[in-house]
Amino acid sequence: MADLLHFEDFAEGQVYDLGTHRIEAEEIIAYAREFDPQPQHLDAEAAKSSLLGGLAASGWQLCALAMRMIVDGLLHRADSQGSPGVDEVQWRRPVLAGDALHLTGKVLGVRASSKSDRGFVKFRFEMHRAGQMVMMFESAIIIGRRSS
Amino acid sequence: MADLLHFEDFAEGQVYDLGTHRIEAEEIIAYAREFDPQPQHLDAEAAKSSLLGGLAASGWQLCALAMRMIVDGLLHRADSQGSPGVDEVQWRRPVLAGDALHLTGKVLGVRASSKSDRGFVKFRFEMHRAGQMVMMFESAIIIGRRSS
Repeated sequence: MADLLHFEDFAEGQVYDLGTHRIEAEEIIAYAREFDPQPQHLDAEAAKSSLLGGLAASGWQLCALAMRMIVDGLLHRADSQGSPGVDEVQWRRPVLAGDALHLTGKVLGVRASSKSDRGFVKFRFEMHRAGQMVMMFESAIIIGRRSS
Repeated sequence: MADLLHFEDFAEGQVYDLGTHRIEAEEIIAYAREFDPQPQHLDAEAAKSSLLGGLAASGWQLCALAMRMIVDGLLHRADSQGSPGVDEVQWRRPVLAGDALHLTGKVLGVRASSKSDRGFVKFRFEMHRAGQMVMMFESAIIIGRRSS
Protein backbone atom coordinates (compact mmCIF):
# COMPACT_ATOMS: atom_id res chain seq x y z
CA MET A 1 0.00 0.00 0.00
CA ALA A 2 3.00 2.32 0.53
CA ASP A 3 3.34 2.76 -3.22
CA LEU A 4 -0.19 4.05 -3.73
CA LEU A 5 -0.88 7.74 -4.25
CA HIS A 6 -2.80 9.19 -1.34
CA PHE A 7 -4.70 12.43 -0.72
CA GLU A 8 -1.51 14.13 0.47
CA ASP A 9 0.14 13.53 -2.93
CA PHE A 10 -2.33 15.67 -4.88
CA ALA A 11 -2.11 19.44 -5.28
CA GLU A 12 -3.84 22.12 -7.31
CA GLY A 13 -2.34 22.57 -10.75
CA GLN A 14 -1.01 19.04 -11.27
CA VAL A 15 -1.73 17.70 -14.75
CA TYR A 16 -1.87 13.97 -15.51
CA ASP A 17 -1.47 12.71 -19.08
CA LEU A 18 -3.92 9.82 -19.34
CA GLY A 19 -3.00 8.61 -22.81
CA THR A 20 -4.72 8.21 -26.16
CA HIS A 21 -7.46 5.86 -27.35
CA ARG A 22 -8.47 5.44 -31.00
CA ILE A 23 -12.19 4.76 -31.21
CA GLU A 24 -13.41 2.39 -33.91
CA ALA A 25 -16.80 2.05 -35.61
CA GLU A 26 -17.40 -1.40 -34.11
CA GLU A 27 -16.86 0.02 -30.60
CA ILE A 28 -19.29 2.88 -31.24
CA ILE A 29 -21.96 0.50 -32.52
CA ALA A 30 -21.45 -2.07 -29.74
CA TYR A 31 -21.81 0.58 -27.03
CA ALA A 32 -24.86 2.10 -28.70
CA ARG A 33 -26.60 -1.27 -29.05
CA GLU A 34 -26.32 -1.80 -25.32
CA PHE A 35 -26.75 1.69 -23.87
CA ASP A 36 -27.79 4.34 -26.42
CA PRO A 37 -29.57 2.78 -29.43
CA GLN A 38 -30.21 5.95 -31.43
CA PRO A 39 -29.68 5.95 -35.21
CA GLN A 40 -26.76 8.43 -35.17
CA HIS A 41 -24.78 6.00 -32.97
CA LEU A 42 -25.84 2.78 -34.71
CA ASP A 43 -26.01 3.29 -38.44
CA ALA A 44 -23.47 5.11 -40.62
CA GLU A 45 -26.06 5.88 -43.31
CA ALA A 46 -28.65 7.30 -40.92
CA ALA A 47 -25.90 9.23 -39.14
CA LYS A 48 -24.89 11.14 -42.27
CA SER A 49 -28.17 13.08 -42.16
CA SER A 50 -28.01 13.73 -38.40
CA LEU A 51 -26.67 16.84 -36.65
CA LEU A 52 -23.51 14.86 -35.85
CA GLY A 53 -22.57 14.39 -39.53
CA GLY A 54 -21.54 10.74 -39.38
CA LEU A 55 -21.47 7.65 -37.17
CA ALA A 56 -20.74 9.29 -33.84
CA ALA A 57 -20.04 7.96 -30.36
CA SER A 58 -22.66 8.35 -27.64
CA GLY A 59 -21.60 11.10 -25.25
CA TRP A 60 -21.87 8.61 -22.42
CA GLN A 61 -19.42 6.34 -24.23
CA LEU A 62 -16.87 9.16 -24.16
CA CYS A 63 -17.37 9.40 -20.39
CA ALA A 64 -16.96 5.64 -20.05
CA LEU A 65 -13.80 5.60 -22.18
CA ALA A 66 -12.42 8.50 -20.15
CA MET A 67 -13.13 6.61 -16.93
CA ARG A 68 -11.21 3.61 -18.25
CA MET A 69 -8.26 5.85 -19.12
CA ILE A 70 -8.45 7.48 -15.67
CA VAL A 71 -8.35 4.08 -13.95
CA ASP A 72 -5.53 2.76 -16.16
CA GLY A 73 -3.50 5.96 -16.04
CA LEU A 74 -4.03 7.12 -12.47
CA LEU A 75 -6.51 5.46 -10.12
CA HIS A 76 -4.99 1.97 -10.32
CA ARG A 77 -2.05 3.44 -8.41
CA ALA A 78 -4.06 5.63 -6.03
CA ASP A 79 -6.13 4.89 -2.93
CA SER A 80 -9.31 5.73 -4.86
CA GLN A 81 -12.59 5.30 -3.00
CA GLY A 82 -15.18 6.47 -5.49
CA SER A 83 -16.86 9.73 -6.30
CA PRO A 84 -20.03 11.56 -5.20
CA GLY A 85 -20.76 12.68 -8.74
CA VAL A 86 -19.87 15.00 -11.60
CA ASP A 87 -20.28 18.76 -11.60
CA GLU A 88 -20.58 19.21 -15.34
CA VAL A 89 -20.17 17.25 -18.55
CA GLN A 90 -19.74 19.05 -21.87
CA TRP A 91 -20.07 17.18 -25.15
CA ARG A 92 -18.51 19.80 -27.38
CA ARG A 93 -17.95 18.17 -30.77
CA PRO A 94 -19.03 14.92 -32.44
CA VAL A 95 -16.54 12.05 -32.08
CA LEU A 96 -16.44 9.90 -35.21
CA ALA A 97 -15.08 6.43 -35.95
CA GLY A 98 -11.28 6.50 -36.27
CA ASP A 99 -10.77 9.54 -34.03
CA ALA A 100 -7.72 9.43 -31.73
CA LEU A 101 -8.82 10.72 -28.32
CA HIS A 102 -6.29 12.13 -25.89
CA LEU A 103 -7.20 12.60 -22.22
CA THR A 104 -5.69 14.82 -19.54
CA GLY A 105 -6.69 15.32 -15.92
CA LYS A 106 -5.90 18.56 -14.11
CA VAL A 107 -6.25 18.95 -10.33
CA LEU A 108 -8.49 21.95 -9.69
CA GLY A 109 -8.22 21.70 -5.93
CA VAL A 110 -8.06 19.46 -2.87
CA ARG A 111 -10.36 19.49 0.14
CA ALA A 112 -10.19 17.52 3.39
CA SER A 113 -13.25 15.42 4.24
CA SER A 114 -15.07 15.60 7.56
CA LYS A 115 -13.91 11.97 7.80
CA SER A 116 -10.27 12.02 8.88
CA ASP A 117 -9.17 9.12 6.68
CA ARG A 118 -9.91 10.65 3.28
CA GLY A 119 -10.25 13.79 1.18
CA PHE A 120 -11.67 15.05 -2.09
CA VAL A 121 -9.50 15.76 -5.13
CA LYS A 122 -11.35 17.83 -7.72
CA PHE A 123 -10.33 17.12 -11.31
CA ARG A 124 -11.08 18.60 -14.70
CA PHE A 125 -10.74 15.92 -17.36
CA GLU A 126 -10.46 17.04 -20.97
CA MET A 127 -10.61 14.85 -24.06
CA HIS A 128 -9.00 16.27 -27.21
CA ARG A 129 -8.86 15.16 -30.83
CA ALA A 130 -6.20 16.79 -32.99
CA GLY A 131 -5.89 19.64 -30.49
CA GLN A 132 -9.63 20.36 -30.28
CA MET A 133 -11.56 19.65 -27.10
CA VAL A 134 -14.38 17.19 -27.77
CA MET A 135 -15.48 16.46 -24.20
CA MET A 136 -14.78 17.57 -20.65
CA PHE A 137 -16.07 16.84 -17.21
CA GLU A 138 -15.26 17.98 -13.70
CA SER A 139 -15.54 15.55 -10.82
CA ALA A 140 -14.28 15.11 -7.26
CA ILE A 141 -12.68 11.77 -6.45
CA ILE A 142 -12.44 10.49 -2.88
CA ILE A 143 -8.84 9.53 -2.05
CA GLY A 144 -7.64 7.93 1.20
CA ARG A 145 -5.08 9.69 3.41
CA ARG A 146 -1.72 8.08 3.88
CA SER A 147 -1.90 8.43 7.64
CA SER A 148 -5.06 6.32 7.90
CA MET B 1 -42.63 11.20 -38.74
CA ALA B 2 -46.00 12.68 -37.76
CA ASP B 3 -46.11 10.29 -34.79
CA LEU B 4 -42.86 11.50 -33.26
CA LEU B 5 -42.83 13.81 -30.28
CA HIS B 6 -41.43 17.22 -31.21
CA PHE B 7 -40.22 20.24 -29.25
CA GLU B 8 -43.75 21.66 -29.16
CA ASP B 9 -44.99 18.58 -27.27
CA PHE B 10 -42.83 19.16 -24.19
CA ALA B 11 -43.72 21.46 -21.31
CA GLU B 12 -42.37 22.23 -17.87
CA GLY B 13 -43.65 19.88 -15.20
CA GLN B 14 -44.27 16.83 -17.39
CA VAL B 15 -43.05 13.60 -15.77
CA TYR B 16 -42.17 10.50 -17.81
CA ASP B 17 -42.06 7.07 -16.16
CA LEU B 18 -39.10 5.33 -17.79
CA GLY B 19 -39.51 1.91 -16.22
CA THR B 20 -37.51 -0.37 -13.96
CA HIS B 21 -34.29 -2.31 -14.53
CA ARG B 22 -32.95 -4.96 -12.13
CA ILE B 23 -29.17 -4.89 -12.17
CA GLU B 24 -27.32 -8.20 -11.80
CA ALA B 25 -23.81 -8.98 -10.56
CA GLU B 26 -22.70 -10.22 -13.99
CA GLU B 27 -23.75 -6.90 -15.54
CA ILE B 28 -21.84 -4.91 -12.91
CA ILE B 29 -18.70 -6.95 -13.45
CA ALA B 30 -18.93 -6.90 -17.26
CA TYR B 31 -19.27 -3.11 -17.35
CA ALA B 32 -16.44 -2.66 -14.85
CA ARG B 33 -14.08 -4.92 -16.81
CA GLU B 34 -14.55 -2.74 -19.87
CA PHE B 35 -14.88 0.76 -18.44
CA ASP B 36 -14.16 1.03 -14.70
CA PRO B 37 -11.91 -1.81 -13.50
CA GLN B 38 -11.70 -0.88 -9.81
CA PRO B 39 -11.94 -3.61 -7.14
CA GLN B 40 -15.25 -2.39 -5.67
CA HIS B 41 -16.93 -2.93 -9.07
CA LEU B 42 -15.16 -6.19 -9.98
CA ASP B 43 -14.80 -8.38 -6.95
CA ALA B 44 -17.47 -9.10 -4.33
CA GLU B 45 -14.87 -9.97 -1.68
CA ALA B 46 -12.78 -6.82 -2.21
CA ALA B 47 -15.95 -4.76 -2.35
CA LYS B 48 -17.05 -5.80 1.15
CA SER B 49 -14.24 -3.75 2.68
CA SER B 50 -14.79 -0.71 0.40
CA LEU B 51 -16.80 2.42 1.19
CA LEU B 52 -19.60 1.00 -0.97
CA GLY B 53 -20.15 -2.04 1.25
CA GLY B 54 -20.47 -4.69 -1.45
CA LEU B 55 -20.15 -5.32 -5.19
CA ALA B 56 -21.42 -1.99 -6.49
CA ALA B 57 -22.12 -0.62 -9.96
CA SER B 58 -19.84 2.02 -11.44
CA GLY B 59 -21.55 5.40 -11.32
CA TRP B 60 -21.05 5.68 -15.06
CA GLN B 61 -22.90 2.39 -15.52
CA LEU B 62 -25.93 3.93 -13.80
CA CYS B 63 -25.77 6.82 -16.29
CA ALA B 64 -25.48 4.35 -19.18
CA LEU B 65 -28.43 2.27 -17.93
CA ALA B 66 -30.46 5.43 -17.47
CA MET B 67 -29.66 6.49 -21.04
CA ARG B 68 -30.88 3.13 -22.32
CA MET B 69 -34.12 3.54 -20.36
CA ILE B 70 -34.50 7.11 -21.70
CA VAL B 71 -34.10 5.91 -25.29
CA ASP B 72 -36.46 2.95 -24.85
CA GLY B 73 -39.05 4.87 -22.87
CA LEU B 74 -39.01 8.26 -24.56
CA LEU B 75 -36.45 9.19 -27.22
CA HIS B 76 -37.27 6.34 -29.61
CA ARG B 77 -40.58 8.15 -30.20
CA ALA B 78 -39.18 11.69 -30.22
CA ASP B 79 -37.25 13.72 -32.80
CA SER B 80 -34.15 13.55 -30.58
CA GLN B 81 -31.00 15.14 -31.97
CA GLY B 82 -28.49 14.70 -29.17
CA SER B 83 -27.38 16.73 -26.18
CA PRO B 84 -24.71 19.34 -25.47
CA GLY B 85 -23.92 17.80 -22.09
CA VAL B 86 -25.03 17.27 -18.52
CA ASP B 87 -25.31 19.96 -15.86
CA GLU B 88 -24.81 17.73 -12.86
CA VAL B 89 -24.62 14.05 -11.96
CA GLN B 90 -25.12 12.91 -8.37
CA TRP B 91 -24.21 9.40 -7.29
CA ARG B 92 -26.05 9.39 -3.99
CA ARG B 93 -26.02 5.80 -2.74
CA PRO B 94 -24.24 2.58 -3.71
CA VAL B 95 -26.18 0.37 -6.14
CA LEU B 96 -25.64 -3.31 -5.41
CA ALA B 97 -26.29 -6.47 -7.38
CA GLY B 98 -29.99 -7.35 -7.42
CA ASP B 99 -31.22 -3.79 -6.94
CA ALA B 100 -34.35 -2.82 -8.89
CA LEU B 101 -33.78 0.63 -10.36
CA HIS B 102 -36.72 2.83 -11.31
CA LEU B 103 -36.18 5.88 -13.54
CA THR B 104 -38.27 9.00 -14.02
CA GLY B 105 -37.66 12.05 -16.20
CA LYS B 106 -39.17 15.43 -15.31
CA VAL B 107 -39.20 18.37 -17.70
CA LEU B 108 -37.61 21.32 -15.91
CA GLY B 109 -38.10 23.71 -18.80
CA VAL B 110 -38.08 24.24 -22.56
CA ARG B 111 -36.06 26.78 -24.52
CA ALA B 112 -36.08 27.65 -28.23
CA SER B 113 -32.76 27.35 -30.06
CA SER B 114 -31.27 30.11 -32.18
CA LYS B 115 -31.76 27.55 -34.98
CA SER B 116 -35.42 27.66 -35.96
CA ASP B 117 -35.79 23.92 -36.51
CA ARG B 118 -35.08 22.74 -32.95
CA GLY B 119 -35.18 23.52 -29.24
CA PHE B 120 -33.76 22.40 -25.89
CA VAL B 121 -35.81 20.38 -23.40
CA LYS B 122 -34.18 20.36 -19.97
CA PHE B 123 -34.78 17.17 -17.97
CA ARG B 124 -34.06 15.99 -14.46
CA PHE B 125 -33.69 12.22 -14.44
CA GLU B 126 -33.91 10.44 -11.09
CA MET B 127 -33.12 6.79 -10.40
CA HIS B 128 -34.73 5.30 -7.30
CA ARG B 129 -34.40 2.00 -5.47
CA ALA B 130 -37.12 1.12 -2.99
CA GLY B 131 -38.13 4.78 -2.81
CA GLN B 132 -34.62 6.12 -2.20
CA MET B 133 -32.85 8.20 -4.82
CA VAL B 134 -29.59 6.54 -5.82
CA MET B 135 -28.63 8.72 -8.82
CA MET B 136 -29.80 11.82 -10.64
CA PHE B 137 -28.66 13.95 -13.51
CA GLU B 138 -29.92 17.03 -15.29
CA SER B 139 -29.42 17.40 -19.01
CA ALA B 140 -30.84 19.33 -21.96
CA ILE B 141 -31.86 17.27 -24.98
CA ILE B 142 -32.12 18.82 -28.45
CA ILE B 143 -35.52 18.07 -29.99
CA GLY B 144 -36.65 18.98 -33.51
CA ARG B 145 -39.64 21.27 -34.05
CA ARG B 146 -42.70 19.86 -35.77
CA SER B 147 -42.86 22.73 -38.22
CA SER B 148 -39.37 22.05 -39.60
